[in-house]
Parts: sequence; C-alpha cells; structure tokens
Amino acid sequence: MKPVKVGICGLGTVGGGTFNVLTRNAEEISRRAGRHIVIEQIGMRSENPSCDTTGMQLTADIFEVATNPEIDIVIELIGGYDTARDLVMTAIENGKHVVTANKALIAVHGNEIFEAAQEKNVMVAFEASVAGGIPIIKAIREGLSANQINWLAGIINGTGNFIMTEMREKGREFADVLQEAQALGYAEADPTFDVEGIDAAHKLTILSSLAFGIPLQFSKAYTEGISKITPQDIQYAEELGYRVKHLGITRRTDKGIELRVHPTLIPKNVLLANVNGVMNAILADGDAVGQTMYYGPGAGAEATASAVVADVVDVVRTLTADRDNRVPHLAFQPSALSDAPVLPVEETTSAYYLRLQAVERPGVLAHVTRILGEKGINIEAIIQKQTTEAQVPVIMLTQRVEERMMNEAIREIEALPDILGEIVRIRVELLAD
Amino acid sequence: MKPVKVGICGLGTVGGGTFNVLTRNAEEISRRAGRHIVIEQIGMRSENPSCDTTGMQLTADIFEVATNPEIDIVIELIGGYDTARDLVMTAIENGKHVVTANKALIAVHGNEIFEAAQEKNVMVAFEASVAGGIPIIKAIREGLSANQINWLAGIINGTGNFIMTEMREKGREFADVLQEAQALGYAEADPTFDVEGIDAAHKLTILSSLAFGIPLQFSKAYTEGISKITPQDIQYAEELGYRVKHLGITRRTDKGIELRVHPTLIPKNVLLANVNGVMNAILADGDAVGQTMYYGPGAGAEATASAVVADVVDVVRTLTADRDNRVPHLAFQPSALSDAPVLPVEETTSAYYLRLQAVERPGVLAHVTRILGEKGINIEAIIQKQTTEAQVPVIMLTQRVEERMMNEAIREIEALPDILGEIVRIRVELLAD
Repeated sequence: MKPVKVGICGLGTVGGGTFNVLTRNAEEISRRAGRHIVIEQIGMRSENPSCDTTGMQLTADIFEVATNPEIDIVIELIGGYDTARDLVMTAIENGKHVVTANKALIAVHGNEIFEAAQEKNVMVAFEASVAGGIPIIKAIREGLSANQINWLAGIINGTGNFIMTEMREKGREFADVLQEAQALGYAEADPTFDVEGIDAAHKLTILSSLAFGIPLQFSKAYTEGISKITPQDIQYAEELGYRVKHLGITRRTDKGIELRVHPTLIPKNVLLANVNGVMNAILADGDAVGQTMYYGPGAGAEATASAVVADVVDVVRTLTADRDNRVPHLAFQPSALSDAPVLPVEETTSAYYLRLQAVERPGVLAHVTRILGEKGINIEAIIQKQTTEAQVPVIMLTQRVEERMMNEAIREIEALPDILGEIVRIRVELLAD
Repeated sequence: MKPVKVGICGLGTVGGGTFNVLTRNAEEISRRAGRHIVIEQIGMRSENPSCDTTGMQLTADIFEVATNPEIDIVIELIGGYDTARDLVMTAIENGKHVVTANKALIAVHGNEIFEAAQEKNVMVAFEASVAGGIPIIKAIREGLSANQINWLAGIINGTGNFIMTEMREKGREFADVLQEAQALGYAEADPTFDVEGIDAAHKLTILSSLAFGIPLQFSKAYTEGISKITPQDIQYAEELGYRVKHLGITRRTDKGIELRVHPTLIPKNVLLANVNGVMNAILADGDAVGQTMYYGPGAGAEATASAVVADVVDVVRTLTADRDNRVPHLAFQPSALSDAPVLPVEETTSAYYLRLQAVERPGVLAHVTRILGEKGINIEAIIQKQTTEAQVPVIMLTQRVEERMMNEAIREIEALPDILGEIVRIRVELLAD
C-alpha cells in the first residue's frame, strides 16, 4: 500500500521522541500498520533539535506543514493554546488528519476543533494528551464502550505524585521537595500548572467527556493544589489507614457530573495508593466491568511519543472507514452528547479529613461534634493527640456529605472561641463503589 | 443507521452477562456506536438460562445461529474446543463476523480460524479471551503499536492469584485454600486448568503472538503450576524482599521467544506484586513507552461481557473499512508474522530461588557454592536458618542464568551426600528492564 506521509510540527522533547520512535521502529510499525509511515516534513523553530534531522525537509514555518499538499497527517507537538489552535484549524481546513499531544489545546478548544474536523471528515487524535504513554483514551473510549461509567479517579500529574511520594516517604516539606523536582527537571521553573492542579484539570476534563459523553468544559473544573499539604497531615492520614494523593476525580451523579482535582485521602491498601514517584494511573469504575486500572509513565519523550505514534497508526487504519463508523472524538456520537451539567464543587459529595487546633479545655469537642451533627455530618473516626501544650490537634474523618454542608459547618466551628486558626480540610474517597 | 444484528451462542455465565449488558446499556452503547445493536437470536442448550429471555428468538441448535441470514455477528460463548471450532468456522463460512471469549479455542485453533476469516473478509474478535474485563488485547495490539515490545508478565488466572494471596496473608497450605476456592466458586471441581497453569498458558500464548507477531503456538508453552508451593517458601521469599506470584511471562530474546507460566518471585515493592485476590494484571515493557500495567477483574459474568460487547462495537465500527486497513487479528499483518522460534524452557534465562535441606556439617555450603560457580551461577543472597536439628534449610537467590545450567547444577547438588531430598527451585524475575 501507499506510504502515509506525516508532518511533525515542533521538535522539542516529545517531537524528538516521536521522530526517534518513528525512525527506529519503522519496520515494526509497518509490520503492524500494513504500510510505511514516512516523515515528509518537519516544522520547527529551534535550531537545536533533540534528534538527528539529517536529510529531512525542514521549515521554520509550521503552517507550511499544515498546508503541504503531500502530507496526510499533521502531528502537532508545539504545545500552548493559540498558535496550536490556529495550526490545527489550518491543518483541518486543508483536509489533514491531526494527531496532538496537547492537553491544554483539547481541554480548552476541543469542542470547536472536533466540530471543524467532523465537518471536513478528518480525525483529530489525542491519546498522548492524557497520561503520556498509557493508552487511557483508547481504554475508556473503546475498551469500556459497553459500560455506563460511574466514575474515574486518577493520578494524572507525575510532578505532583513525585512530590507527594517524597513528602510521605521522607517526611519532607512541600517547598523542599518542589525544589528538588525542579533540579531533576520534573517540575518547571514556574510550577503552577503542575502543583496547583491545572495540568491535571486539563486531562481530567478530557477524560470526563470521554466517560460521560459531555462537551469539554474545562472552565467548570474545580482545582485545588498540593502546596498546602504538610508532612504532618500525611502522617496523620497514614495513622488512619489512608494515603494522600493528588487526584483528578470525575463522577456521574443524579444531579450532574462532578469534575474536581484536589488532594485526596484514599485507603492505603488500594492499588492506586501504591502508585509512586512520577508514575501515573487511572482507576475506572464501570457498571459492567467493575474496576479496572491503567498504569504507566505520564510524561517523557518516548513514552509520550508511543501514544503519538499509536494514534498515527489508528488514523491510518480508519482512513477507509466512513465518518459515521469511526470512533467519535468524544467517545459518543456528536449528536448524542449529554447536557448533564458539571456541578459546582459545593454540590459535590465527599467524605472529609479535618484537622483543627483546639484549646485544651473540657467541652470543646462537644461543641464541634454538635455543629457537625446539626449539619447531618457523621463522624467516622477521631484522633485527639496528647500534648503538654495548651492546644491540641484534633483529627477527624467524616462520612460522605455535600460540600455545601461541610463549608457551613467549618465556618461555624472556626467561629468557636476555643478553635484556633483555620481548619485543614482534605477530601476522602474510599474508591469502593 | 441500520441496526446491527447479533446472535448469541451459549447462555451460561458469560452469555447471560452479555445478554444483560446489551439489554441494560442499549442506549449508552448506541450513543457510542452510532447505531443499535439488536439480539436477533440465541442458541442455547440449557433450559435454565441465567437471564430473562422473554420474547427472544431461541433455538437449541447453535448452528442455526451461525447460518441465520439475518445475523451480522455471531457471539460464541459456549466454551471448549471442538464444537466451538466448528461453530466459529461455520459462522465464518457464512460470512459472519465472530466475537468470542474462548481462550482455549483461540490458543489452539486460532491460526486456522484467522486464516479462514481473512479469506472471507470477516473479523474474529477475542478481547474477552484474555484477562476478562481488562482491555489488554486492545492495549497491546493498538495502544502499544509504536513499540518493540520487550516482554510481558501477567497475573492472568484469578483462581491461582486468590490461592497465592490467601497462602501468603494467612500462612495457609495450598490444598486448604484450594478447597475454599472451590466452595466459593472461584475454582472448578477439577482445578487442573487453573492451578496447573493451562488456562494461563492459553492466555499467554495469545498475548505473546500479539506482542511479537508470531503464530499461536500453545503446544510450545512451558507450564508449571502452584500446587507444590508451600507457605514456608512464601515466607522465605518475603524475608528476602520478594513475593511469589503465578505469572505468565513472554519475552523476546536474540535466540527466540520465551513463553512460560510458573510460580515466580518478584520484588515486593513492584505494583504487580500488590495485585491480590482474584484480580488480574498484565505488565508490559516496550522500548518506547517503558512499563505500563493493566489491572482488573479477569473473570465474572458482566466483567467478561464488558469485553465481549466492546468487541461487538469495534467490529461494527470497522465494518466499512477495507480488510487491509483493519487491525490485524494477531496485531501484525498476516504476511508479516515472524518465524522466531518459541524456546524450550531449558534455553530460557532466569534468576532462581533455591531451597535445599542440608546436613549441618562444615563444608557442605562450600560444596554447593563450588558447583554453582562451575556452572557460572552467581549467588545473590543466602539465608541459612538456625535450627537445633541435624539438618538445616539453606535458601539461596542466584543471578540470571540459562535454565539448562541450573538444571545441571541442581542434579549435581542433589547428588551430594549431605544434601537431603529434592531441591526446591522457583524462578525469580526483577521486572526491571
């Protein structure tokens, strides 16, 4: 069969990895795909590419790649929002299929991009945009297609998981580990995207749409970072049988879809709690299959390239299928997307870990438990630490309750004269059903 | 679009699950697939189906389903070898696509079946044949298509994993736990298929062909069961930092393909070692992606049905693609399969756990280590247990060596006058590269 010609835009870490995988594994890939995949042109701005481009057709103008009549598939690896959007839209306009690793692009501009692609009868594939080398989009979109998916919970930011793992294993402070992560190249100079959960929220937005068949709604994702987590809370959680992980959680409820990224206590003995270091994992709960989990490297040049190139092979394979028989971009047919609302975080439901600092005086705990009781919040466990000082830390685990009620309770408890400072609140998920 | 009509053959556990999932999730599935999937006819011998078939077109002759001109896809869920083979071949002859959950059928008759399917331009899908609800075939065949896969290691028999987990957690004997597994319905009255590794070897044979592009060669798989594992060996392994799991391992080497099922020590801290109970998991190592793992229920009515129905949706989606652009049955194009030989177990390479019973006399250990040294076998660790008796157990971990050399060394060591009885030998895999 005729070779397929691809154009690569962007030759940074993932671009270089993609170039190397396509080149090194050319024979293995064509044994699978049934035809050769040839790099026709590379658009790159850097003069120091991360791979050997000798003999390649190079251009500094990435839009030249998107309009090159020789090219069948444009691989967008430049990252970012606006230029990437323009590039992808230009490629689609010119009848090219697109493969991208850009989670921000898909989470923010995906609806518009998929609509354009649908109109031009081309595919936009984005496996590499979530959890790097783990074929999680394929798993949810195709592997679990028989299920009503109930929820997904994932460790989908390697930097954050590295930091949480180091803090737990070595009792280190957040700021200290962050500095190390930056030195190791796991975290950017400006770590906001990773540690404040924005990167994870991009990925979770995509996963949620695939699981529940809703349009992409990044702006409605609730995002809370890990910068306020202390080694002390991690230690208390361990004593209670829990581990603190930075999770993306999306759940279907009767009222709508929960879509939230935040630190979370999960039972120590579940497999997800034992995913350490920079590794990613996504746990999915479907009504037929029950729980399945997908684990692997969430970043890295060739790990991400593995997903990019798999997408290229997939696109090649469905070239001859008519549009209506292809896997839909968001797993569900565009005409069958649901208008279930994404819930504000106040309307989500969760169990809670609370840590409060109380003056050691008889009756304080009774006040606290009375307020919780009035809000319908049941207490699962309490630890009151012995201390020689005049104040004691009190740690509580509650049962599930709507967040709005918990917010009210916390406001009232913080107003008690014997409660000092702010209450630390971390959500708890049992991941049991 | 026109509904797709399926016929189900076999209405046992998985058949009933498939019926229920197709019925209950009909709307969710058609929102994804873009058309309705309708159960046209059911072939079943039992008079007590595991689901409510009111209003369905039933027949006691499953071959009627395979030849029914109304039916597009035949779902084979009768199990076993010969009748299943005849049924599937008849369906193919009649131009039907086939979905099957039958690992024995695919492992033993797959080459012939796929050839017939290729000739008639139909698809045979078999996701449910390996690891139940985990979409592992899709992951390897499509998700990792950019990779040279180096090896796979999997817990692919839930009964065996349940037994190994109970033995470790509670220090119980094999026979005792097996009895409980039978009472719980996890193990058959004749447990040979599960505990002797035959079921796992069927699945591993399939995974190996998908990973390396070789024809199915079940007869060359090496199979060793768990019935001789003792709580004592599990305990010693734990002391050394290892856990004993019944693994299927397939690896690409310069000389050929390793294909082996046996009890295996793996480091306690790897995620695969923490997959407990009846759950399954497959760890895959690819040259680009590194390690990814896939976890979930390996059996059960609806978990398996999840994979069966996902296959139906996949088949529906590729109906309009031409044959050469579909995902090949064994991941690689039929014309591109490799003739790399499956190696006899004597030519495979592994590290080893050895337990020997020695008379407590000076110089015994020196004799043992001399023999190992002569065969080029390096010792990684030794535990010599203190005892008040005249004989002591000696536990050793060796570095990697060809099994042939280990067999020779064991024969010579067993011939030493101060070594009593047979040496216990369990293979060790670090799963590190």
